[in-house]
Amino acid sequence: MLPLNPALAATFRPPVMEARRWLAGLSFPPERPLINLSQAAPVEPPPDPLRRAMAEAALERPDAHLYGPVLGRPELREAVAGEWSRAYAGAIRPEEVAITQGCNQAFCAAIQTLAAAGDEVILPTPWYFNHKMWLDMQGIRAVPLRCGPDMVPDPAEAERLITARTSAIVLVSPNNPSGAEYPGETLRGFFDLARSRGLALILDETYRDFDAREGAPHDLFADPDWGDVLIHLYSFSKAYRLTGHRVGAVIASPAHMVEIEKFLDTVAICAGQIGQIGAAWGMANLRDWLAGERAEILARRAAMAEGMAALPGWRVKGCGAYFAWAEHPFDMPSSELAQRLLREAGVLLLPGTMFMPEGDAEGARHVRIAFANADRDGIAALMRRLEAFRP
Amino acid sequence: MLPLNPALAATFRPPVMEARRWLAGLSFPPERPLINLSQAAPVEPPPDPLRRAMAEAALERPDAHLYGPVLGRPELREAVAGEWSRAYAGAIRPEEVAITQGCNQAFCAAIQTLAAAGDEVILPTPWYFNHKMWLDMQGIRAVPLRCGPDMVPDPAEAERLITARTSAIVLVSPNNPSGAEYPGETLRGFFDLARSRGLALILDETYRDFDAREGAPHDLFADPDWGDVLIHLYSFSKAYRLTGHRVGAVIASPAHMVEIEKFLDTVAICAGQIGQIGAAWGMANLRDWLAGERAEILARRAAMAEGMAALPGWRVKGCGAYFAWAEHPFDMPSSELAQRLLREAGVLLLPGTMFMPEGDAEGARHVRIAFANADRDGIAALMRRLEAFRP
Repeated sequence: MLPLNPALAATFRPPVMEARRWLAGLSFPPERPLINLSQAAPVEPPPDPLRRAMAEAALERPDAHLYGPVLGRPELREAVAGEWSRAYAGAIRPEEVAITQGCNQAFCAAIQTLAAAGDEVILPTPWYFNHKMWLDMQGIRAVPLRCGPDMVPDPAEAERLITARTSAIVLVSPNNPSGAEYPGETLRGFFDLARSRGLALILDETYRDFDAREGAPHDLFADPDWGDVLIHLYSFSKAYRLTGHRVGAVIASPAHMVEIEKFLDTVAICAGQIGQIGAAWGMANLRDWLAGERAEILARRAAMAEGMAALPGWRVKGCGAYFAWAEHPFDMPSSELAQRLLREAGVLLLPGTMFMPEGDAEGARHVRIAFANADRDGIAALMRRLEAFRP
Repeated sequence: MLPLNPALAATFRPPVMEARRWLAGLSFPPERPLINLSQAAPVEPPPDPLRRAMAEAALERPDAHLYGPVLGRPELREAVAGEWSRAYAGAIRPEEVAITQGCNQAFCAAIQTLAAAGDEVILPTPWYFNHKMWLDMQGIRAVPLRCGPDMVPDPAEAERLITARTSAIVLVSPNNPSGAEYPGETLRGFFDLARSRGLALILDETYRDFDAREGAPHDLFADPDWGDVLIHLYSFSKAYRLTGHRVGAVIASPAHMVEIEKFLDTVAICAGQIGQIGAAWGMANLRDWLAGERAEILARRAAMAEGMAALPGWRVKGCGAYFAWAEHPFDMPSSELAQRLLREAGVLLLPGTMFMPEGDAEGARHVRIAFANADRDGIAALMRRLEAFRP
């Protein structure tokens, strides 16, 4: 038998793939098709003009097929620096932006450069499972920080969890899985805490394009010394429907970028060129289209909140971006509920256990509903099925 | 300041990017253009039909843009399993193949699943720098195994290096940076050694398509229990000129694939879909074209070997695939020589120091010449410039 890294053996299997395995062998009648709310992913491809731009690049641009710089194509790094500087009223330079093979990899790069086995990272719960998996694999302890009833974590609570081994605090806003949009003063509080204790604040804003609030969600980039504290993560996957191209970004100080470049060179060499070309094209040309996408997601969110509020026994704790985090009324753990909802109601969602420390009761009582994949008719159908479900 | 993982700080910066920085501010006269032999990468894009196939997928196949399975597209996994089973006279099933975001990532996945901080991995020298960098970052000790004069490592020498902390032996054949094609009996010897000592044998065959030998380079896959010992790595980048798409593969037992899937889900979610579509198209349609590519590389290799043999003072130690590993005749370290060759002769190659443990004299005396990027005229020009170089 092959040797086995015990940290890998102790890590759980990918939740989304596990949910896909539940589907094996099941069939869904035409009058009640599967409603798949398991993954935070667009189900439609990018708009036609973006697909044409990528196809043209494949045909006509040799550099679309060849190695590019480790830290990404200059035009995309410049576009991000420019747009972020405007959006956050800060000064972000292209050399402070790196392009990664998806935002998961941006997180891996950030952690790898900050912490080693035996260190600790504070992660609000419920957490994004891939964050927990990477920390497990690296032998880094994920220190759970329970959110308040509004699903927002409290810097003062976080401060009590800091030890001599703490390297970083990770926040995801808008949040996966809860959908919560963290207030600007909360983010400022965490920033100040991290600065005062010499920690990094990793802020994952994958869902920033679907934030319900107008204007900048925080003012951290306006601090000229943001790079001493903040590492920001972003994904092009959701805004431009580029999930299959794997394009994300990490923003960090130039000094820290030297370390990030080592990681990306080794694990990636570079991000895919066609995806980067598509992302840059999208940023330059799809601003209005993206505004429409946001409006549609916000309408679905409203339908979701309204529908869930009318659903007996269910309680929505957070709702935003692609997700709702909901307490269910049934006398069974969410892991069982999810499988029964799939078989008996044709609804696939992920149990809260996938987002919480093992054995935590909050996981058993909650589910994550990735509602953005359903249109308003789909959300209405979801409500009917959840209401009719009698275990 | 941000916290810093000391393992990252101790890792060197990406050599290929360092060499690119040497180019900054230099210009090369038209009568003596730069001969860039620094990177093992095709300089031409994929052939037109493959580019058209990828462009069509971008236009017409929604799934070319959306998440795919963590372990890769089924048709590509099946194609690899089928072709490898034929080529190696073994039985490799699709579920034993995973597609990665390039072959570097396949190596990272293999190591991460086998070893943790404090473990040891045996690496013949000269080594491939990204292998060394990943081990450094993970806190795993790279144990150097010096090759013989023919640049082939000896299993008996490796056995002397095994300790209670050893997890794996890594071989690259044909080799980067030496070009050496390891004999089948050498690979069998390492396989038997790894099996007898409970270690993994990671065999990176990125350059298999350009091996000068006909037929299978080893019979390890014919062993029905190969999965208890062997993890095989491959890259689609070189054969089909897809470096910018980042598509590689790892072949491992189904039991070990469960662990690899955890790593790939976390660091990648999936490999890029268009690159995978292109790789599968290439495997199905470019067999004859690839045979021509191989013949061209072998012709360049012959020109390289002949030219270097006639060059006073230089001694080629290994020559194959994309690379020659050559001892230079000058009274200066290779790190200085490489920069002077660039400025004074317009030739960019990598110093041996980038491929050897720090301070090892072999590194200072050798250079890696990635000759596959030069056609026969380019190789002739290289010889004239090396001969004329008088430091």
